Amino acid sequence: MNMDISAVNALPYEDFVNIFGNVVEKAPMVAAAVWSRRPFMSVSALETAVSEFIDALPESGKEGILRCHPDLAGRDLRSGTLTPESREEQTGAGMDALSSAEATRMARLNEEYKQRFGFPFVICARMTDKANILRQLSERCQNERAAERTRGIEEVKKICRLRLQTLVLSEAPNKL
Amino acid sequence: MNMDISAVNALPYEDFVNIFGNVVEKAPMVAAAVWSRRPFMSVSALETAVSEFIDALPESGKEGILRCHPDLAGRDLRSGTLTPESREEQTGAGMDALSSAEATRMARLNEEYKQRFGFPFVICARMTDKANILRQLSERCQNERAAERTRGIEEVKKICRLRLQTLVLSEAPNKL
Repeated sequence: MNMDISAVNALPYEDFVNIFGNVVEKAPMVAAAVWSRRPFMSVSALETAVSEFIDALPESGKEGILRCHPDLAGRDLRSGTLTPESREEQTGAGMDALSSAEATRMARLNEEYKQRFGFPFVICARMTDKANILRQLSERCQNERAAERTRGIEEVKKICRLRLQTLVLSEAPNKL
Repeated sequence: MNMDISAVNALPYEDFVNIFGNVVEKAPMVAAAVWSRRPFMSVSALETAVSEFIDALPESGKEGILRCHPDLAGRDLRSGTLTPESREEQTGAGMDALSSAEATRMARLNEEYKQRFGFPFVICARMTDKANILRQLSERCQNERAAERTRGIEEVKKICRLRLQTLVLSEAPNKL
């Protein structure tokens, strides 16, 4: 699947939501809302529409988006209940191949993070690796709640950008 | 499952989203957001928090919520891909037992409605029956888009109220 933007713009909402419903993890409502903004000039314009929709949510809505994300190397990875996109991202970053010590540390830090903030640690796993994820998780546990909410949403947008790029051709081929 | 409100208020967000994630169809983000508003004094307070969250969304977000709803007597009912809540509501209203003529009429009106408004016809099926659904669908096809968006969201809230009532005890038993 790699459509050009004119094909995207021609989709009825049902097909659009089927295809783009998980560009924000488990929040098909975001894609379903953004369909109202078509036509899109480019994949970046679609990405911008998603970002603007998220930015317009109340703070509780941003926290809601974060809370729909799975833990890294958590229960959903072990039980095979991750979304296909998350599974690919987490395994790509080595989350399925932690040593016993790393797994223990990750579980402990995830719990500490969730206890402190009331939402999970979110990071764009495709832009990083195992060592960096553990380091960032440990560091970000020290932040303030509002700063982490903002940071988590920035990561959601990076994840969204990469997911969109696997679905939509970024520019007309003759420009490449 | 029928918890009292103090048990609801004690839930970590992951359990809360697992239990209440579909009180608004396919929009777990709404429950995940509303968790920020706990503790709730009663199931009505929880219902109010959901309503207020929906009301605060931009119009595109309200349309997004509508677009996450399945057609009545549509493809998802036939293929068994409705959420459990929707399946129960649709079969309760006889949507799985339409005559051939009714099914044809329903499919035609659903398409007409979606073409006209860009979102599906939403109605609280548990508060009505087959004949009334067909009549309302036909009548509501004649409305203006903004009026139908408002009306659809009112129906979403009725559906939410009934789904909440199956999950949470409404009042302390000693008051009954």
